[in-house]
Amino acid sequence: MIKAGIVGGAGYAGVELLRILAGHPAVRITAITSRDMDGMKISDIFPSLRRRVDLKFVSQEDEAFKRCDVVFFATPNGVAMQQAAGLLAAGARVIDLAADFRIRDVAEWEKWYGMPHAAPELVAEAAYGLPEVCREQIRGARVLANPGCYPTAVQLGFLPLIEAGAIDCGHLIADAKSGVSGAGRRAEVGSLFSEASDSFKAYGVAGHRHLPEIRQGLSRMAGGSSVGLTFVPHLTPMVRGIHATLYARLTKDISAAALQELFESRFEGEAFVDVMPAGSHPETRSVRASNMCRIAVHRPQGADTVVVLSVIDNLVKGAAGQAVQNMNIMFGEKESLGLEMLAVNP
Amino acid sequence: MIKAGIVGGAGYAGVELLRILAGHPAVRITAITSRDMDGMKISDIFPSLRRRVDLKFVSQEDEAFKRCDVVFFATPNGVAMQQAAGLLAAGARVIDLAADFRIRDVAEWEKWYGMPHAAPELVAEAAYGLPEVCREQIRGARVLANPGCYPTAVQLGFLPLIEAGAIDCGHLIADAKSGVSGAGRRAEVGSLFSEASDSFKAYGVAGHRHLPEIRQGLSRMAGGSSVGLTFVPHLTPMVRGIHATLYARLTKDISAAALQELFESRFEGEAFVDVMPAGSHPETRSVRASNMCRIAVHRPQGADTVVVLSVIDNLVKGAAGQAVQNMNIMFGEKESLGLEMLAVNP
Amino acid sequence: MIKAGIVGGAGYAGVELLRILAGHPAVRITAITSRDMDGMKISDIFPSLRRRVDLKFVSQEDEAFKRCDVVFFATPNGVAMQQAAGLLAAGARVIDLAADFRIRDVAEWEKWYGMPHAAPELVAEAAYGLPEVCREQIRGARVLANPGCYPTAVQLGFLPLIEAGAIDCGHLIADAKSGVSGAGRRAEVGSLFSEASDSFKAYGVAGHRHLPEIRQGLSRMAGGSSVGLTFVPHLTPMVRGIHATLYARLTKDISAAALQELFESRFEGEAFVDVMPAGSHPETRSVRASNMCRIAVHRPQGADTVVVLSVIDNLVKGAAGQAVQNMNIMFGEKESLGLEMLAVNP
Amino acid sequence: MIKAGIVGGAGYAGVELLRILAGHPAVRITAITSRDMDGMKISDIFPSLRRRVDLKFVSQEDEAFKRCDVVFFATPNGVAMQQAAGLLAAGARVIDLAADFRIRDVAEWEKWYGMPHAAPELVAEAAYGLPEVCREQIRGARVLANPGCYPTAVQLGFLPLIEAGAIDCGHLIADAKSGVSGAGRRAEVGSLFSEASDSFKAYGVAGHRHLPEIRQGLSRMAGGSSVGLTFVPHLTPMVRGIHATLYARLTKDISAAALQELFESRFEGEAFVDVMPAGSHPETRSVRASNMCRIAVHRPQGADTVVVLSVIDNLVKGAAGQAVQNMNIMFGEKESLGLEMLAVNP
Repeated sequence: MIKAGIVGGAGYAGVELLRILAGHPAVRITAITSRDMDGMKISDIFPSLRRRVDLKFVSQEDEAFKRCDVVFFATPNGVAMQQAAGLLAAGARVIDLAADFRIRDVAEWEKWYGMPHAAPELVAEAAYGLPEVCREQIRGARVLANPGCYPTAVQLGFLPLIEAGAIDCGHLIADAKSGVSGAGRRAEVGSLFSEASDSFKAYGVAGHRHLPEIRQGLSRMAGGSSVGLTFVPHLTPMVRGIHATLYARLTKDISAAALQELFESRFEGEAFVDVMPAGSHPETRSVRASNMCRIAVHRPQGADTVVVLSVIDNLVKGAAGQAVQNMNIMFGEKESLGLEMLAVNP
Repeated sequence: MIKAGIVGGAGYAGVELLRILAGHPAVRITAITSRDMDGMKISDIFPSLRRRVDLKFVSQEDEAFKRCDVVFFATPNGVAMQQAAGLLAAGARVIDLAADFRIRDVAEWEKWYGMPHAAPELVAEAAYGLPEVCREQIRGARVLANPGCYPTAVQLGFLPLIEAGAIDCGHLIADAKSGVSGAGRRAEVGSLFSEASDSFKAYGVAGHRHLPEIRQGLSRMAGGSSVGLTFVPHLTPMVRGIHATLYARLTKDISAAALQELFESRFEGEAFVDVMPAGSHPETRSVRASNMCRIAVHRPQGADTVVVLSVIDNLVKGAAGQAVQNMNIMFGEKESLGLEMLAVNP
Repeated sequence: MIKAGIVGGAGYAGVELLRILAGHPAVRITAITSRDMDGMKISDIFPSLRRRVDLKFVSQEDEAFKRCDVVFFATPNGVAMQQAAGLLAAGARVIDLAADFRIRDVAEWEKWYGMPHAAPELVAEAAYGLPEVCREQIRGARVLANPGCYPTAVQLGFLPLIEAGAIDCGHLIADAKSGVSGAGRRAEVGSLFSEASDSFKAYGVAGHRHLPEIRQGLSRMAGGSSVGLTFVPHLTPMVRGIHATLYARLTKDISAAALQELFESRFEGEAFVDVMPAGSHPETRSVRASNMCRIAVHRPQGADTVVVLSVIDNLVKGAAGQAVQNMNIMFGEKESLGLEMLAVNP
Repeated sequence: MIKAGIVGGAGYAGVELLRILAGHPAVRITAITSRDMDGMKISDIFPSLRRRVDLKFVSQEDEAFKRCDVVFFATPNGVAMQQAAGLLAAGARVIDLAADFRIRDVAEWEKWYGMPHAAPELVAEAAYGLPEVCREQIRGARVLANPGCYPTAVQLGFLPLIEAGAIDCGHLIADAKSGVSGAGRRAEVGSLFSEASDSFKAYGVAGHRHLPEIRQGLSRMAGGSSVGLTFVPHLTPMVRGIHATLYARLTKDISAAALQELFESRFEGEAFVDVMPAGSHPETRSVRASNMCRIAVHRPQGADTVVVLSVIDNLVKGAAGQAVQNMNIMFGEKESLGLEMLAVNP
């Protein structure tokens, strides 16, 4: 059994990790912590866990963390980078669901996240946890940077097109829509039910922290050449789900059928990417509470603009589920172990 | 492996049965049918099932149904009573998620459901599938009447009070609120998003079909004496969930602590009834997509009116989950097998 | 023109007051304040007001307040009682949308609201602003206590029955459901979209601050004799609206038709109470953004329990709209002036 | 007083017309009809109209229609073109909220709408009712084609850029999101609450009927040269609102400040287009139930892709409100008469 610890167990990524790990046949959760919650029962905060997860929050200094095989950080940005080295020294591996190890250019990270980086050497070492692209690096990783939710949906959608050199990478557009749980469980006016329901808006058009992460990933796919990306995130009145609508200019004349074939062959064998039939419109609820990414590719009116639709559950494939998928790879388990749950529909 | 068939697989109870049975370690789904859908793939209607449920709808006359060990009816009322006898003759057991076998008084059934009953003799034979009350009858049943969603939430909430003779059964009140999925997947104006969202209303105050079913169940708990019940169902803008708020007049002076103890001891050992700590307010999302019923009991201001709060997911403990729980009992499996999934939160 | 000031303009009752008063033909808004917002434009906080409400928040000490004919307090409890005397001295009248002047028994108020009362003498003077009951007192009032949202819906629903002596006032039940805007615009985890949407729960079963207010009002209707009330508020996933489902035991045998007639005659001529036809189920959206209260009365199955359904928009008839209705009465305007807007549907 | 008739009063555009016209000081609604509803009271279908709109549906042959000054068609496509000539002959003007007169190329219309056109000569005569572009033609029009909801939001957003020749019109992208009321009040599975809530999806990527209408409008702005447009509509779980996110490649180097100035000067004096301050993200609820269009223009990261955010209420500026705005222009009334209502927020 893999002994797992969770830092930051009282947020949405934390409770989703608990839901998944509680049913994972190869994992035992041995320690959990969250700021200011020492001694409280998790199930008092999340009654959905009652009678199945019988854990109390302990202090981050608790010995139990030192005996973990893996520690998940479901914390705000800037926490994992402080604690990772100590845990590594004690023999644990670290999976960070926040952004601390995602951007290889530390200066760039510091610019977007507004703080000095506490562990640049671990950034260099960390694997980027998008299995469909970086599976080999993940296998041996001690430190894993779990991708952001938008970056997961956007990168998987552009992947086949960029690898095939089929599109103009100088002018990519990602119009992305997220459910409100993406904003976390912090008490903020903008996330109130009465503010966010029955309304729709863009935000962060001038620049969102996921922009450099996506750019870095797309650039890697493009063999290192830089990419131009306009990324507009939106808030939509639902709890879970991301829908990325991607636009790119074709640089070759590829038929719709060939585009379909390109996507199907690229993701063949992937457990968690489902290329929908030609003409499909995946809806976010088709992946709700599951680790699947569903993708459809279109070439409307035969014009030279290709449109990709990519949906994930931001808390699963966009956070906790992908983290467990990465853990499975890191520990040599079957990649889909404990992640077989079907989407909840309706 | 239990070979299971599903009649009526294209509604919400049907797709929920598929979600649950697809992950059930002792079941193989061998046949599925739905009116007018012969030959279609299930996953074309419910993309959430893609890559896990690879079934096509077959005709109801398909031989596969005759080889089933159990057939679930997730159909409108009046279907199972037509087909049950034939399936029983072929050796299958029948679990009806509709109302055909719920009311023992056939004349009463015909009055509320507006049609002649096609199989009164099976009504007499059928077990009522509320395991917390009727577990012994369920064990040997060939025909099982799976309870309605409101009846499940209301009966479990009143159960300890009535069995203990603690309340006036002549004037019970059940104020119940249901998510919209309770109305099914039929195209009706009243169930449209633009009609049902951001609004709240009562319906069926003059008389709802679940009233006689609840009255029959409560009367059974009361040792056969008749009960007086005012039942007001409401529609609330959420997909899943029932919240029953129950009111009764105490006939004995029982302290709040004793009421708490009464509930805890009555449901001790029950896998799917969770008595919350004193003072709790269970929310429907704490059971979303799970088979749990959570209950809290209150005695506000020390007055003689007791208030019980009882929540379930109408599609799970109120339909498909309870049906699988009953199947487990009927086939000698562990009662919670395949039903361990935690609620999805948020 | 009535010169109106608003204290607490940055909450939901405040913005709703602005929406209504901006279109009121006899009112000019001359001053507005909100804690810590000096100098900010209102329309920067509420873009819905852009190009129509061109006001900046001023300090509460601003001279403009002293020149107001009426000052509305859309503040937390405990603010109006501090400032009312000064405004009265300057010649303004005061309408408090919070609870400071609602409970005539000051000790009872202090118990429920957890603070000493700063102006008990004004409590004695204040009129309770439920026009359908207290119109005469309102006419001459200098200080007006605008009713709570639940109290408005519940009192109007019970009114005809209690005045007619038709029900047992010792065991009234009010099962009330509110949209989330009732919790205000404060950043609290429980009001987050991801917490409150797609879920339903009761709260405050042990005792809610609106309980003593409702009891006081019902007792007044009952000629001063005390009433027994079980009040259970619930949170439902919608922005606006209250649905009160009321239960009482009839003490006389009154036919359903006579009950209908009783309600229709009691509310005849009332501009803002609409008695629906027999058999109706009013939905909250039928009053959304309007000042109407719609009521239906039922006697299910001819039993001795009467059921009343009463719906309002909590921010209009339950707050800002009723406040303007009261202002109209206080200043001798037509009661419905500026309040003619129809409900927004869908 | 303008005597107005409504054909198709039982849909969402119809009830919104009634809400607006009931409060319009220069209009009297004299006749209303809806298929199969002869003799029914409108307020029995829409209780929100009770006590304010006391009309019964009459037959379309009713004499009252012949005496109307203006008849609004809030019907499915293909109805107005059958009846317009008769009404014109009787002296009425016609405002069609459906698509019958929107596309000047009749063959193109027939291709997209799948039926032969019944009145091509009226297409030639009809004015396109986007006042910010076509005000002069509207003034004298007998037949008015009220724009579609998506076309309104998209055209207003692109307008300043195209007129200024600032963008590459060969590769425009309109990523648009609509609330569910856009699908109308028809009973369809896809519009059910349990299907459309808590989910997000694209639809009609291969080709939506609003595409040729938008292309025609943009082409007019571009001086008649053809435009290339990729239009992807999405369904978002809210009742009302459209959010169009528009992308275009700049062909000149225009600073963000100059873009802002371009938009402000183009829409100066427009009553119903509000250019938000630089850096804004308009949300759909800021226009809910109002006739306003709010627009923001961005140039993210100084790249050559300009992003425009444009929001309207699809039932008001996208349908009934714009229809009344057009009526005001046609009849020489003040353009904003009866349309001053502020957005409902929250």
